[in-house]
Amino acid sequence: MAEKETLEKLTGLGKTMVEQVDKGKSPTFEASLRSKGNIEFDKSVGFLRLGDKKEERTFLNVSQARTFMQTVAVANKAKKFLAEDLHTSIRGLYYQLKFSLGEDIDESLFEEQSESNALVEDLEVALSVKREDLHLTTDRKGVVAGNMIVKDNFAGEQTEIDCAQQGRSGWMIPSDVDNGMEFVDIKAKYVLVVEKDALWQRLNEDRFWKKDNCILITPKGQASRGTRRLIRRLADKGLPVYVFTDCDAWGWYIYWTIKTGSMNLAYLGRDFSIPEAKFLGVTMSDIEKFPFLKKLTIKAKEIDIKRAEEMISYPWINMHPEWVSELNKVLKTGQKIEQDALQGERLTFVGEYIRQKIKNKEWLP
Amino acid sequence: MAEKETLEKLTGLGKTMVEQVDKGKSPTFEASLRSKGNIEFDKSVGFLRLGDKKEERTFLNVSQARTFMQTVAVANKAKKFLAEDLHTSIRGLYYQLKFSLGEDIDESLFEEQSESNALVEDLEVALSVKREDLHLTTDRKGVVAGNMIVKDNFAGEQTEIDCAQQGRSGWMIPSDVDNGMEFVDIKAKYVLVVEKDALWQRLNEDRFWKKDNCILITPKGQASRGTRRLIRRLADKGLPVYVFTDCDAWGWYIYWTIKTGSMNLAYLGRDFSIPEAKFLGVTMSDIEKFPFLKKLTIKAKEIDIKRAEEMISYPWINMHPEWVSELNKVLKTGQKIEQDALQGERLTFVGEYIRQKIKNKEWLP
Repeated sequence: MAEKETLEKLTGLGKTMVEQVDKGKSPTFEASLRSKGNIEFDKSVGFLRLGDKKEERTFLNVSQARTFMQTVAVANKAKKFLAEDLHTSIRGLYYQLKFSLGEDIDESLFEEQSESNALVEDLEVALSVKREDLHLTTDRKGVVAGNMIVKDNFAGEQTEIDCAQQGRSGWMIPSDVDNGMEFVDIKAKYVLVVEKDALWQRLNEDRFWKKDNCILITPKGQASRGTRRLIRRLADKGLPVYVFTDCDAWGWYIYWTIKTGSMNLAYLGRDFSIPEAKFLGVTMSDIEKFPFLKKLTIKAKEIDIKRAEEMISYPWINMHPEWVSELNKVLKTGQKIEQDALQGERLTFVGEYIRQKIKNKEWLP
Repeated sequence: MAEKETLEKLTGLGKTMVEQVDKGKSPTFEASLRSKGNIEFDKSVGFLRLGDKKEERTFLNVSQARTFMQTVAVANKAKKFLAEDLHTSIRGLYYQLKFSLGEDIDESLFEEQSESNALVEDLEVALSVKREDLHLTTDRKGVVAGNMIVKDNFAGEQTEIDCAQQGRSGWMIPSDVDNGMEFVDIKAKYVLVVEKDALWQRLNEDRFWKKDNCILITPKGQASRGTRRLIRRLADKGLPVYVFTDCDAWGWYIYWTIKTGSMNLAYLGRDFSIPEAKFLGVTMSDIEKFPFLKKLTIKAKEIDIKRAEEMISYPWINMHPEWVSELNKVLKTGQKIEQDALQGERLTFVGEYIRQKIKNKEWLP
């Protein structure tokens, strides 16, 4: 469905440009401005999104001509991929363009490690589609197990993947969890997102997802696009989402990116944020409830301190007194706690911790 | 089986030490020396391994007392994990030790990013066991799909995972693919290891593993321990192993680590090397066979050049004239090729390339 719509949007973009040329005008397209000044936290919806400012890209502008031409070339390739019903990565797209355009294509815009991939972002914003809808794959990273079945319609085949039958490991969360994919027969009552793979493995060995009837996901650090979309889709089905990370800069960043999105990706808006998500821990306050943790804190690094200070200044964080109090504890003590520390006394405590937190609603917003 | 043996070895280590103490001697244990001077490429077997030099760790030695005590503590915890039949990560082990020993445990030896984890390595070498046998999990990274079934006996459950029923994604390769796990009903004829996730996804969409009847693995960069063990086990079943990477420093390193092991991990020996592996490409010579690649090379980075020079100096590489010739092509042209470039002309060419390479035996040793 999204694919058909995307194809129409791409065709529409091209037609508009041809009409502009026919009228003797410079071909032009408009997209929301993605720079910092146009990013706002929308309190009414609970995520970072772009404001109303637009920017116009036009061919007959010396500073924009080259990028404009490249954007049109990207749109053209995406249309081709959709028509062929084939997918590739942004890097694959780069080589397709390089093959057609030779040296005229700017490699730096397609760097693998870059969060920008500016030309693709332009199209995503201008057409209101996700790059996955343009048949561009992204790197997979997260893993899932739990009581649900994935109905996958892919490459002309129908497959049912039972996420409760993954043994000691899990199903790798794909790049695109939307087009041709359905989550059915969800018996699980909530989604548990666990920052670290090691903790996922610990909980999986305890069959935590089975005993507590949840869907166990690890993003393995920062969540991939596929993982964020999966969580979003499960939240749309009414499942509460609990996130469990380290009490440190990286852990907080992972949580807040899942919840409200990040500045970089504000243009993705609601599709990639889960404002309903709750933060289960680890928190500095846990030390009071679980005294054995006291000797398992470690020294906060400079980045943790700096991050805590920054976070207190963000309106979408300091609107929650619980978070301000928590971050101040880190600043005051200069200490942090890793989720791994919960295993210090006994390995199986991790599950007990999560159970107790959820039961007593001991989470941060 | 390995677990029972490991438990006996751990008990044996402890008993020997107690006997030493009873005799009024300093408790001692011996392990192969892991430093560079004791690493050799064994041509007869085709992998890097430790030589005959041993080192003795003894308690009554001022410079060794602390590490010795920590090693014994690690052995003790591993014995406990085996007895409890529970697993944790090295980081979890660190917190268990910190809980028992307080400040006496050296965090730096348990750094997540460190390749060393010296104390665990000591035990692996001294007892000739893998850390997985000590119930220590490692991070998962690779993904698998293909015509084989995994019989998994884990956490008191029996599961069968059909790697041909993974839809658009795959089964995440677990940390430990040995204890309690069997690969059965392998209809696939060979193993294809693809460096990048993007290329795995490309081939998976083409159902390459189905049409060509292979097992499709991506390590997603450098191979995790679990991925290396999986490839080793499949090679032990007689399946040829073909590796497909970028033609650059990182790609070559990935291949040679899979094939012969690396200096860092030479102590792991045959368990983690696949000397039978062949290198399918990408190679600079491919340009002659596939002229469209000519305009898709990119400038080699300094690290690629440096690495190519280093590799030519390694006896286990320069014993192969094909490799010397290939590396010289990179040095001479100052160019490299990524595997993604194969998609430049058309996306589905990747599979055709692999098919042709295997059919014509166009691989490097």
